[in-house]
Amino acid sequence: MSNPTAAILIIGNEILSGRTQDVNVNFIAKRLAARGIALSEVRVVPDIPHRIINAVNELRAAFDEVFTTGGIGPTHDDITSECVAAAFGVPWEIHPETFTLMEARMGRENFNAARQRMATFPRGATPIRNEVSLAPGFSIGNVHVMAGVPRIMQAMFTALEPTLPEGTPIAMRAVYGMGLMEGAIAAELTAIQTRFPDVDLGSYPFRRGDAGGVAIVAKGTDITRLEAATAEATQMIAAAGIEPVQGEPEPG
Amino acid sequence: MSNPTAAILIIGNEILSGRTQDVNVNFIAKRLAARGIALSEVRVVPDIPHRIINAVNELRAAFDEVFTTGGIGPTHDDITSECVAAAFGVPWEIHPETFTLMEARMGRENFNAARQRMATFPRGATPIRNEVSLAPGFSIGNVHVMAGVPRIMQAMFTALEPTLPEGTPIAMRAVYGMGLMEGAIAAELTAIQTRFPDVDLGSYPFRRGDAGGVAIVAKGTDITRLEAATAEATQMIAAAGIEPVQGEPEPG
Repeated sequence: MSNPTAAILIIGNEILSGRTQDVNVNFIAKRLAARGIALSEVRVVPDIPHRIINAVNELRAAFDEVFTTGGIGPTHDDITSECVAAAFGVPWEIHPETFTLMEARMGRENFNAARQRMATFPRGATPIRNEVSLAPGFSIGNVHVMAGVPRIMQAMFTALEPTLPEGTPIAMRAVYGMGLMEGAIAAELTAIQTRFPDVDLGSYPFRRGDAGGVAIVAKGTDITRLEAATAEATQMIAAAGIEPVQGEPEPG
Repeated sequence: MSNPTAAILIIGNEILSGRTQDVNVNFIAKRLAARGIALSEVRVVPDIPHRIINAVNELRAAFDEVFTTGGIGPTHDDITSECVAAAFGVPWEIHPETFTLMEARMGRENFNAARQRMATFPRGATPIRNEVSLAPGFSIGNVHVMAGVPRIMQAMFTALEPTLPEGTPIAMRAVYGMGLMEGAIAAELTAIQTRFPDVDLGSYPFRRGDAGGVAIVAKGTDITRLEAATAEATQMIAAAGIEPVQGEPEPG
């Protein structure tokens, strides 16, 4: 598959401490899948400069696009922007156009030193203006630096989206069986996977209240093949004496 | 801080595709914080052998404890156990005690080849028996291999917990201000952080419906210092003309 690849880097002490449940990965993952970009890695690192710098450099070398979330506000713990400049080996400097825009919108007397940091980018960065926050994110090379607050991140991603590469969208089909046990269908599922090497077949146990079952999920870019593989999985479930149900169970 | 460190490795195509919202990180993060173990990195990688093997080896070298979730069921896409054996350079072989236990509980006629894979561990591994799943997780060296299904993972973590090292629990205090703007208090917050280098002060914008504010979160192992820093943050919010509220706003 020659779809573009991507990684997400979450800069977030609040995720690592357990204070906050991340929801940004799931949002970005769905939007990338729809665009045919293969999300290939996620990392969460703390607000420590060398950890951020190393992760940015490893991920931007390994994947086509890198999305960071978090750490671009005005407070002392917001160090993503400086760290990205360090990762690229470029100066971190006032972005004049952004500075002027933010000053005009906030008023000169409110545009204090802390807020001016949000108009300071790695040299060569392009702002990601958006409909929610006055302070933009930015892109430099293949690295896209976004806010951690989900509503702002989503606005930034939406603004960025048309500039991203496109692949063949990754489609998904699912069939599930309530009461199905993975161990009972594993051999047959392996046989189906062998017949469909171009389809990515996954098997996911789930629960709904006191009952449980297994979802068989087929992913791929060729919808005809995807549906043929799903049809075989459907027969496999029926052959196990369980009524197959098309569609998506609750995740879990 | 000399607390033990930890990383989580999620083996999960379903997280990367956006089909599933991860909830395991948040569970493990909270339990580690309570035990005084510093969660220092999270990675999500796809079900691809060299990606899993490399991640296991990088993380076990860099951190004191590594927790993996996902990929230990009976189906073809469950390859974590083999990959951990490869990472440690040891054979992957039947664990006789686990084999006998599972066979006895399942009955010989149901204990097929797929299910026998769940009794196959890297040589030297110790099973993580638990109250939910017949098939155990396992520990080898500093790597703890657990299921991806949250209910099973939680049972495995709970069984494992007493064997983990302990540090000084990382306590947290929060104070927040509705309507507070980060940019208005950033300079004063930096001054507080400078006076309390032993406390980790974070600033997190949040929203509740149409309103928003900022949570100031103090983390550390010395509760006296933590509360002193939080008291200064409380005064800072009051000085900005906003009523400070102790406690935890909804995350976000």
